Amino acid sequence: MSTSLKKIAIVGSGNWGSAIAAHIGDKVLQLDTEYDPQILMWCKEEILDDGSKLTEVINTKHENVKYLPNKNIPKNVIATSDLSESVKDADILIFVIPHQFVKTTCEELKNQIKSSAFALTLIKGFYVDEKTNELLLVSEVIKNTLNIPCLSMMGANIAKEVADKVFCEATIGSRDEEHNDTVRQLIDRPYFRVRFYPDIEIIEILGALKNVIAMCAGFVDGLKAGFNTRAAVLRLGFREMINFCRLYKKESTTDIYLESCGIADLIASALGGRNYNGAKKMAETNRSLEDIEKKDLNGQSLQGPGTAKEAYRFLEGKNLLDQFPLFRDAYLICEKKIEPKKLLDNLSNHPEYSQKQQ
Amino acid sequence: MSTSLKKIAIVGSGNWGSAIAAHIGDKVLQLDTEYDPQILMWCKEEILDDGSKLTEVINTKHENVKYLPNKNIPKNVIATSDLSESVKDADILIFVIPHQFVKTTCEELKNQIKSSAFALTLIKGFYVDEKTNELLLVSEVIKNTLNIPCLSMMGANIAKEVADKVFCEATIGSRDEEHNDTVRQLIDRPYFRVRFYPDIEIIEILGALKNVIAMCAGFVDGLKAGFNTRAAVLRLGFREMINFCRLYKKESTTDIYLESCGIADLIASALGGRNYNGAKKMAETNRSLEDIEKKDLNGQSLQGPGTAKEAYRFLEGKNLLDQFPLFRDAYLICEKKIEPKKLLDNLSNHPEYSQKQQ
Repeated sequence: MSTSLKKIAIVGSGNWGSAIAAHIGDKVLQLDTEYDPQILMWCKEEILDDGSKLTEVINTKHENVKYLPNKNIPKNVIATSDLSESVKDADILIFVIPHQFVKTTCEELKNQIKSSAFALTLIKGFYVDEKTNELLLVSEVIKNTLNIPCLSMMGANIAKEVADKVFCEATIGSRDEEHNDTVRQLIDRPYFRVRFYPDIEIIEILGALKNVIAMCAGFVDGLKAGFNTRAAVLRLGFREMINFCRLYKKESTTDIYLESCGIADLIASALGGRNYNGAKKMAETNRSLEDIEKKDLNGQSLQGPGTAKEAYRFLEGKNLLDQFPLFRDAYLICEKKIEPKKLLDNLSNHPEYSQKQQ
Repeated sequence: MSTSLKKIAIVGSGNWGSAIAAHIGDKVLQLDTEYDPQILMWCKEEILDDGSKLTEVINTKHENVKYLPNKNIPKNVIATSDLSESVKDADILIFVIPHQFVKTTCEELKNQIKSSAFALTLIKGFYVDEKTNELLLVSEVIKNTLNIPCLSMMGANIAKEVADKVFCEATIGSRDEEHNDTVRQLIDRPYFRVRFYPDIEIIEILGALKNVIAMCAGFVDGLKAGFNTRAAVLRLGFREMINFCRLYKKESTTDIYLESCGIADLIASALGGRNYNGAKKMAETNRSLEDIEKKDLNGQSLQGPGTAKEAYRFLEGKNLLDQFPLFRDAYLICEKKIEPKKLLDNLSNHPEYSQKQQ
């Protein structure tokens, strides 16, 4: 019987990976249906301070004590450090690893995936080709390397709060509608509402870019500029995000920017996300990013600086940096080439204020 | 000579009134130009705790000690309690009084205004006609009663921060372009950027509605729902704001919602505006609005509850309350007809999640 049940694999087990594994693990138990209740979750092995292995702790305590402490992970979610094992029979692969590991992970999985499977990426970030300076999306890497369809889910989903089952929403990018019902079944709950759009590229780009603008909000907040300035930075940054997306691809509807993946994710990130907090601390203390990641973030890396670098390279390649001062300055601050104060001073001359208005 | 200089009057001297009077008072001193540097500011007389008159304190200490303490008001701004006197020779009238006093104030000023004058309103709020249930805007009341053109300025402009000259922006609604240069001259600064749009109605409606949605954010935050939920409420509320505006009038460009008067003002208000804080306290303490206004807000009234009431009546008249659950629930909470928890529970069934997607 079990061969006919659809198997789900979670590739990744960090903060967000553990939360979504718990969310889906919990949901499949309630669906007396076509899904195999046992979910394998790939976990990069780590030896914890007390000498125990992270996978073993997850499978005995049913909690990711390192990356999502004090939140229960249902017993039907099994952590494994064997990547091939975790995905071998999977029909649905959910990717939630740091974006810098996507290419190597997919290469490793090549030809090991069922041809009928499909993927869903929750990964924030994109790549800029070193030669062509063109954008490459995470979903494209997965799709092209594994030769399976790939959907994308982004939104205002701080992992800890999702684990606490407080209300949130997400946006799912899905080019055709074939897998929408499956994804809706696995993820949609009264306290986790999803909406589907065909604009998978826009959704992914927004999910990556918002970390940079959240950092900009953190910089000005670290300088104690106040709510008016923070709101202006978020608005100007949101406009830059939209303009950036449009350099890549025209959206099917401008509504996409007003979805959870757009304005809501930006707001949540700028209220208290990791990138916001790290940037704020940078502006306040003048400490380096590396130092903040190490001492304040439990070794978790910020996604914003990497994305800022890629965005800078993409815009530089198109000779458009002046049209995107927040993206430009965020990168330059991360590189310690300018002070956060410079970003604040530059707001006054943002191209928004010189462009022709309708 | 002075007869040829344009005279500016500020009608109102509360928190925002005092800040904009200081802003413009400071600016005209730098324009060696066509403006009379002396600006009259109408101030409803109040006797302070020490027995002194508010107007006299403003004119001697050059500070509105009651509504904008510790911020300097330049000496060329003169407070007067004589409404007629303040506007008699004015070429430019800036209205910044609580919206419930607009009609009576304008009636009092009828036939006292120069026919060549124009007005600029900074007032947040609108009216719903008791009989027809149709919206009536503050700018329309001013325009129709005084028979002069009226522009409107809204944006993320917390008064205290404007007084501190930290960077902010604003959106100005102006049907024709005749007075744009004057308004730009008086208000635009490197740390206060303005943009003009013809959508004066939309700008004003957004400026009023945002207080209600900021309250919704305060309610869920008072219930400790977290950042994801707060972001979802702001997004859903922003969509309701846009849909509400479209019931009244089609915008000339969807960009108007992404201006300072739209998303930025909403964000700033929901970060720490008065309506947000009052609503948060309501949800936390279960105290009444009146009690909070009296004890926590120095007697300043919240604009949100009044706007929620008007919005409710407008939507009820159109039989559309179910399409606007946040506006509906905000009003019902203010009236103590439902608990804030109910608004949170209703998010899950927001019409956004059932409407057909593109």
